[in-house]
Amino acid sequence: MPTIKRIDHIAIVVDDIPSALTFWRDALGLELAHVEDVPDQESIVAFLPTGESEIELVKPTTDTSGVAKFLQKRGAGMHHICLEVDDIDAMLAHLKEKGVQLIHETAIHGSGGKKIAFIHPKSTSGVLVELYELPTPAP
Amino acid sequence: MPTIKRIDHIAIVVDDIPSALTFWRDALGLELAHVEDVPDQESIVAFLPTGESEIELVKPTTDTSGVAKFLQKRGAGMHHICLEVDDIDAMLAHLKEKGVQLIHETAIHGSGGKKIAFIHPKSTSGVLVELYELPTPAP
Repeated sequence: MPTIKRIDHIAIVVDDIPSALTFWRDALGLELAHVEDVPDQESIVAFLPTGESEIELVKPTTDTSGVAKFLQKRGAGMHHICLEVDDIDAMLAHLKEKGVQLIHETAIHGSGGKKIAFIHPKSTSGVLVELYELPTPAP
Repeated sequence: MPTIKRIDHIAIVVDDIPSALTFWRDALGLELAHVEDVPDQESIVAFLPTGESEIELVKPTTDTSGVAKFLQKRGAGMHHICLEVDDIDAMLAHLKEKGVQLIHETAIHGSGGKKIAFIHPKSTSGVLVELYELPTPAP
């Protein structure tokens, strides 16, 4: 049975990274690990590690992406949680068998060689859930 | 400077604990640690640990609490995140000095002797943030 290992990150959609950092970094004291422009996801993303997880601030850079539409409709706020799984292919097959509605029935490639997939909020009590599996280190 | 140590839990408001568990426990494979009726919070809460954090499913038991109104207005979904802090009194004083809008300017007592306080979403890019400090063990 594939296993969930931990919360990798919580993604928060924001309208402006610098003003979001006045709380998450400057007031709360989290360290800003790095900021990355991710044109594939039409976003700028800032990563703030805490314990074994990260707070991820996501600012849309276009008006048409999923996060941009989320921001327009609901305003800034929590967007999804990402859970690390040890075997994403086995987990997706298992979830499908259980009747869970998947946005990606097979894993897609995320940044840094990660394999990722999203689960539809209809099956999760309204939470957009991302699964990811770390790339196997080169031998 | 007071320090955030980790994500303690992510709270998800649901309309029904058993049907939420068909995903979070039965499909995803998280362990259900326990279910607790919390009359003070007008809720039933189910805890599913993962790594150093927990997924917390919250079902309102009245129509009048904050979570009940959230559920009526927005439907099931992520409600708040809770961060463990090593010194909540110092953190609240520090946040106040930084101009952060606090729901509780001084910590209140949560279950099990924990000291907790909530930060207003206006200051956090739309995220309801709970802080908590573990009780000091008896000598």
